[in-house]
Parts: sequence; structure tokens; C-alpha cells
Amino acid sequence: MTELGHGSNVRGIETVATYDSNTEEFVINTPCESAQKYWIGGAANHATHTIVFSQLIIDGKNEGVHAFIAQIRDENGNICPNIRIADCGHKIGLNGVDNGRIWFDNVRVPRENLLNSAADVSPDGKYLTAIKDPDQRFAAFMAPLTFGRVTIAVSATYSAKVALAIAISYSLTRRAFSITPNGPEVLLLDYPSHQRRLLPLLAKTYAMSFAANSLKMLYVKRTPQMNKTIHVVSSAFKASLSWHNMKTLQECREACGGQGLKTENRIGQSKGEYDVQSTFEGDNNVLMQQVSKALLAEYVAAKRTNKPFKGLGLEHMNETSPVIPLQLTSDSLRSTRFQSDILCLRERDLLNRFAAEISLSQSQGQSKEHAFAVNHLLAEDLGKAYADRAIFQTFVEAEASVTSIPLKTLLGLVRSMYVLFTLDEDAAFLRYGYLSTENSSTIRKEVGKLCTELRPHALALVRSFGIPDAFLSPIAFNWIDANAWASV
Amino acid sequence: MTELGHGSNVRGIETVATYDSNTEEFVINTPCESAQKYWIGGAANHATHTIVFSQLIIDGKNEGVHAFIAQIRDENGNICPNIRIADCGHKIGLNGVDNGRIWFDNVRVPRENLLNSAADVSPDGKYLTAIKDPDQRFAAFMAPLTFGRVTIAVSATYSAKVALAIAISYSLTRRAFSITPNGPEVLLLDYPSHQRRLLPLLAKTYAMSFAANSLKMLYVKRTPQMNKTIHVVSSAFKASLSWHNMKTLQECREACGGQGLKTENRIGQSKGEYDVQSTFEGDNNVLMQQVSKALLAEYVAAKRTNKPFKGLGLEHMNETSPVIPLQLTSDSLRSTRFQSDILCLRERDLLNRFAAEISLSQSQGQSKEHAFAVNHLLAEDLGKAYADRAIFQTFVEAEASVTSIPLKTLLGLVRSMYVLFTLDEDAAFLRYGYLSTENSSTIRKEVGKLCTELRPHALALVRSFGIPDAFLSPIAFNWIDANAWASV
Repeated sequence: MTELGHGSNVRGIETVATYDSNTEEFVINTPCESAQKYWIGGAANHATHTIVFSQLIIDGKNEGVHAFIAQIRDENGNICPNIRIADCGHKIGLNGVDNGRIWFDNVRVPRENLLNSAADVSPDGKYLTAIKDPDQRFAAFMAPLTFGRVTIAVSATYSAKVALAIAISYSLTRRAFSITPNGPEVLLLDYPSHQRRLLPLLAKTYAMSFAANSLKMLYVKRTPQMNKTIHVVSSAFKASLSWHNMKTLQECREACGGQGLKTENRIGQSKGEYDVQSTFEGDNNVLMQQVSKALLAEYVAAKRTNKPFKGLGLEHMNETSPVIPLQLTSDSLRSTRFQSDILCLRERDLLNRFAAEISLSQSQGQSKEHAFAVNHLLAEDLGKAYADRAIFQTFVEAEASVTSIPLKTLLGLVRSMYVLFTLDEDAAFLRYGYLSTENSSTIRKEVGKLCTELRPHALALVRSFGIPDAFLSPIAFNWIDANAWASV
Repeated sequence: MTELGHGSNVRGIETVATYDSNTEEFVINTPCESAQKYWIGGAANHATHTIVFSQLIIDGKNEGVHAFIAQIRDENGNICPNIRIADCGHKIGLNGVDNGRIWFDNVRVPRENLLNSAADVSPDGKYLTAIKDPDQRFAAFMAPLTFGRVTIAVSATYSAKVALAIAISYSLTRRAFSITPNGPEVLLLDYPSHQRRLLPLLAKTYAMSFAANSLKMLYVKRTPQMNKTIHVVSSAFKASLSWHNMKTLQECREACGGQGLKTENRIGQSKGEYDVQSTFEGDNNVLMQQVSKALLAEYVAAKRTNKPFKGLGLEHMNETSPVIPLQLTSDSLRSTRFQSDILCLRERDLLNRFAAEISLSQSQGQSKEHAFAVNHLLAEDLGKAYADRAIFQTFVEAEASVTSIPLKTLLGLVRSMYVLFTLDEDAAFLRYGYLSTENSSTIRKEVGKLCTELRPHALALVRSFGIPDAFLSPIAFNWIDANAWASV
């Protein structure tokens, strides 16, 4: 799909597939250097076939982007005639994948090679489709890409779990400084600052894990009616979880000091391997803009039809706006009621603001695209608000399925840490006035208390990820033995 | 210096150097596996000599950490007797440096090998020093390490400049989507969102560059009286500039999409190479804690002696507290007066708060170390406040030295962008009430305006870094030609 000149903007790709009704073939061509296919996984050395996204031209008319199967190598690995291939070169990660570049020199493929679930071409060159709207047709072609986003969201969570399991295990065996005169050196994780670095990210990783599981099930049980929901949820979760993973990797890397830089300790290495996740299968920022646009569409439809919100978890918009107490106590902060209220309040208010700003821009004669472009900060804040609220709901659902009381209690602490850390971390709650400075200060203190309460459970919480030892690294175990002269 | 078991906590290292007055030698020994020297640059393959930091033992008494010269290889590169060496292994960056591990098996070095600027041992084993206080003596031994922090701060700035020059050049040739129906695709840097990603970081890099130059001059013109100032400034700038570089690299990497992941495009590669900067020559978090402790010491001394603040730029604490206007206009936001006021207000208030909290903790019977440990968030916020204010001052000084009016005007925009972005980015201004939500919203809009105003100067601003073409990468130039089949 991707070309040198076009990535996110798939509809702008320049490769063309021209139908030749005389031979009932498509002629696939790379008309210019910027149209060379780029980043094609497996293309550089191994693949025998590829799916080519191209502009479909029939009798001089462009029917938009369609996908075709083309052979690029024979069974012996020799590159086919009229195909040119080059390697994308060394990357900072995923070098196990031979990403390649492909040029098509009027390559002919039979008519049957068009992937025709959403549109087809008859032998005599008639364009046939049940989806008349080009935007919807394009969306139908793109729908299968959702799967990639699901797998990225899930694997980002695994990566964060591995990094936290390593960093937390290390912090429970590594000591530095003392906090009593001539006292013993203190375990890293007994420092409030080290707890504050790792335990909120641990709680957030639990939240992300529940979100990833929920997304997997949504995808597995998908129906055509759920395309929109799956697109929005997978976009929001893919962006949120992959960003969270990168942040977690960096924090864990630094929390392990120099050891975090050793390739054998995996965390630093993972940074290179997973960095691409915020770019491929949809750039995170572009995906989050799509989330906000989808929410806006729901908003506009609800207002226009005067019907209640239904779907995407926006039903809370039908209720009256939640009121946040002026004085927040530890009990209220840890209640799902408050946590749900504050996350819903933010989403509701930002959606209202976003709709108002877009409407204002358009009333001033700006195009919709221009209105979105200038209101990008609101769109980003709204996208995050949606994701946080949706992730929170998956946490509450997972918690509800647990029957063991001690486990429920611990998960409650983890959930509170996730939400309160989110409130402390994201300045939007102060910026838009959802929290007063007093409440914000109370929340920050509560995060500190939760650090103390979660500290004794830290090891159990990472062990429960069930990561096999072979996926961890020396500093997660007896790193003095591993580094001993006898091990050289 | 570093050992497997001790990095930041240098005073806890376990290597011992025992004086033998019979032979007038020190006997250097690695008493346990955690005492093996670790990360020693050049040790794995090349170095013939090393400086060993060890506990100095004379007649059974530990005189603390001292430094000794020891030979580890002969002139032919053969490892010396009683020395064992192993490689630290593959790292995520700086693999051009052969970091090694060293074990000393009662290695004897002559008495003269003690680096004796701060203390010496007489032939008959008397410990001689002009610095009676062990803390001050330790500080004197550590003082030469300042140089490492200066070079890190400076090189971090170069790295950020290279990344921005590449990412901004690319954003001025790469197009995506259009914002008018059927209109042409738009340059990345013409999107407000892309401007918002890169231009504030560009302004901040200018600020960091002035700070780095100022630090260099401070170091070059240093006198023994300036040790404290240099320690504090180099610590704050090393941490701030290296963090800024990592943030800039990540943002530039993502802003270049997949191209940012190609090793040939440098940005992604730099992430691995520069990651260590937040760890070596003093962990950034530890350094920032030291900055806050140093500020607190100034505060306590000023209050105790009832004398005005003098040094470390804290003279503003002698004035009355600045008052931030309730309504901020574009003019006031761009004035150095407001910018200085808000940065000084934050530093002053956080120093007052930090002093009050530490005093409160100590009055409740906690040790000083414990008080620092539990107030780490305030300490971090204070460290950042100090750094931002000090960096701002170097900007104002650099600006004052410029005579060309157009250049002065442009630098004024860059300075305003630096400060207003800092105000928008750091939630502390809202959290501690230095900015109202209204003012915060005004500032956010002003950053957007500054993006528009700086956009036409973006290329000139990165070109003026004077980076030779060979230090940039293909996407900074004609990347279509560079990727053409003819170039394969």
C-alpha cells in the first residue's frame, strides 16, 4: 500500500492499474519515482506475491484505490519480469523483516486478481459495486486493516509488561544510598521517587491489558454492523497503547540506569523494535484525529435527529453533566463513581467544545478540513479523553468478572492508580477546569499514597503477567551471578 | 568509578586500596563480584591505564573514596597480571566505545599513583589533607567530573539541532492530504499540528543552545570559588538539555514517519546513541535532586544569616514577589518582563514550598534524607523551575548581544515561543496556581500564533545552525532522487 510519496494519505497513491478489456487484464504501473512501493514487508528478499494498492483506471476514468494480487518472484525466488525490487535498508528495529521497495513496469495480472469484496470489474470493463459512495467504498477496502491495529495494541501491552517485569524485579534487588545516617542502602523500589516512576505505569499497563483483551474480543466477535465501532476503538487503543508502551520502555530504561542500555536486558532493544508502532498501520496522530472526527459525526447526527447518543460508549452524553465535588476525599477519589464521572465529564465537555469550534470555523467559511486542521489540539485532547474513558470501562468490566475478594480489592487499588495518575499526568483536567488546583493537589497526594499501598504487591503484580523467564533478562534475576567472572 | 553494584552512589563503592607502608604501595582489590568495575570506557579492548576510584584504607581506617592510576595492559595490549577484564557486551548505542569490566586482584601501584590534589598519603602512611570535612573532600574529588556534564549538555544540543534540521527540511518537501476540496496536497509544515510538533522544540533548542554556550564559557573561565555554581548549573543544564534532546529526537522521528526509522536518516539512530546521556556522568534525576538541595542550602543560609540571596541567579528572591496580570495580552505575553516574572515566580514559590515541607518533615523527626525522599515531586518541579529560569536568562543575554534589528525581532519571537511553550507544556503553572485557566488558554492560543509567525522562518532557523550537509541525511534533501531506482 505505502509508497515513497504517500503513507497516511492512501487515497493519494500514484500506482495505477489500468484495465485492458482486450486481454481481460489489469496493467499495473509505477508512473514516477514517488510511486515506488515502500516498506513492503518481506518484499526485499523473500515474498513471491504481493497485494498492490493502485488507482483503478477503466476507460480513462479513475475509480479510486483498489487492491490487486501480483506475483513478484517465481518459485525459485527469481524476480519476475517487469518487476524491480530494492531493500529499504537498515532500520532502528525490526530488521528481521526484509522491508522492500517495488517498481511495477506495466505488469499484467488477470482480471480475477482484483480483490473484489467491495467492487468488481466485468470482463468487458464495467465497474460494478454495491457501495455507491466513494468514501464508504474506500472505507470498505480499508476495513481489513483493522486487524493490524488490534495486533499492535495487544503486542504493545506485552512489551510494556516485559519491561515493567524487568525494571520492577531489578528495583527489588538493586540498592542505592541510604536514608538513615550510616544506615543500609535502600532498595530502589523503596524510594518514593522510584515507586512514582514505575507503579503508575504498572497500573496503566493493567488498564491497557484489559483494553487490549476487550479489543481482541470485539474483533473476534465482529459483525459488519460493528465496522465503525471497531474502527474507532481499534484506532484509539492502537494509538494509546503504543504510545504508552514507548513511554513505559523509556521510563523503565532510565529506571534501570546503565543496565537498561545493555541489549541483553531487552528494554532498550525494545525501544528500537517497537518505535514503528506509532507510525505503521495508521500514524497515531492521524488515527486520533479520525477518532475525534467520528465522535463529532455522532454528535452532529444526535443533534440533527434529536435522538439520544447510542454506541461508542457515548450514552453518558444523554445524562445530565456530572458534578465533581469541591472537596475530594480519599474515599471519593477511589470510587468508580467519581472516576467515571471525571472521565465522562472531560469527554463530554471536549466533544461539546470541539463541535462548537468546528461549527464556528465552518460558519466563517472555512472548509471542514481546514477547521479540523486549526482545531487539532482540541481534537487531540478529545481523542485522549475518549480513549481514557473507554479503557477505564474495560477495566471496570474486567474487575466485575472477578469474584475473589482480595483480588478485587487489589484490582481496585490498581484501577484507582490508573485513573488518578491519568488525572495527575494530563494537564487537560486543570486546563479546562474539570479539577481545581486544590483537588489536583489532593489527587497528587493520593497517587503517592497508592504507591505506598501498591509497593508490597509490586512483585506479585508483575509475576501475574505470567511472562516466561526466557522473555525476561539477567537483571530480572540474580544479576550479580550473571555478571560474575565465572559467567564470562 | 562505576561498579556493578554502585553507580550514582559513588561513596558506596566497594573496591579497596589498602596502603602498604613497607613497600610504599597501594594494594587495589575487588573484594566481591558487585565491586567489579563496570562501563569503563575503552577498557574492554584498548586502554593501557585506568583511574580507579577506591575506598582508601590506611591502618584499617577508611578515609573514603580516592582515585588511583593503575596499568591494566602492557604496551602490546596484553592484560597485566592480577587484572581480569571482560566486555560489557552489546549496547543500544555507542558501540564504538568498548566499555569493559575490570577485576583487581591485589594489584600493587606506587604511592605516587594516588591523584593527590585534595588529599595525600605520606610514605610512612599518614593521611594528609587540607580539606577536613569529608563531604567537602569528596566534593573536591568529584569536581573534575563537571567537565563531562558540560560536554553532554553541549552535544545534546547539537543532536537536537541535527534532528530538527532534518525533520523540518523534510516537512518542507513532503506533502500529505489537502485541506481544500480537490486541492493540492499540503506541505507537512503547513499543517498547524505539524508546526506545533516541531517549532516549539526548535525554539527550545535555540534556548538550549544559548544555555550550552553560556555553560561552556562559565566552565572555561572557572575559578575555584565558582565550583558550587558550576556544579549546580552544569547539573541542571546537563539534565535539561539531555532530556530535551531525547524528547526532540522522538518527536522528530515520529514527525518523519517511517523515514525516521531508517538508520540512514540519523534521527532514529541518534535515539540509541544519546539515550545514555540521561544516565552517565550523573543520573538526571539524581542531578536535579542535587540542584534542589543546593537551592535549599542557599535558602537556609540566607534565612539564617538574614542576608540577601547572592549567586545561582537567586537575587530575584530579594525583590517582592512578581504579580501576574489577571488578563494577559499578546503584548504582555511576549515581553521579557512577563516571561521573567512568571519563571521567577515559579522558582521562588517552589523554593519556599520545598523549604517549608523539608522543615516540616524534619520537625516531625524525619532524617533529612527521608524528608528529601518523600518530597521528591516538589524537588523535581523546583529543579525544572531553576533550569528554565536560568536557561531563559542565557537567552536574554544572547539576545542583548545582537545588534541587527531583524535578527533581534526574530530572536524575540523564538524566545517568546520558548517561554510560552514551557508555560503550556509544564502543568506546574496551573497546578500551583501561577496561571489561571483563562491565562493558560490565552497562552495556548499565543503559541499557535507564534507557530504561524515562525513558519516562514523555519528553514532559515535550522540553516543558521550551520550543520554541514554530511551530518544531515537523505530526507533533508531531494529524497525522491535519493530513493530513485537509479540510486539503488
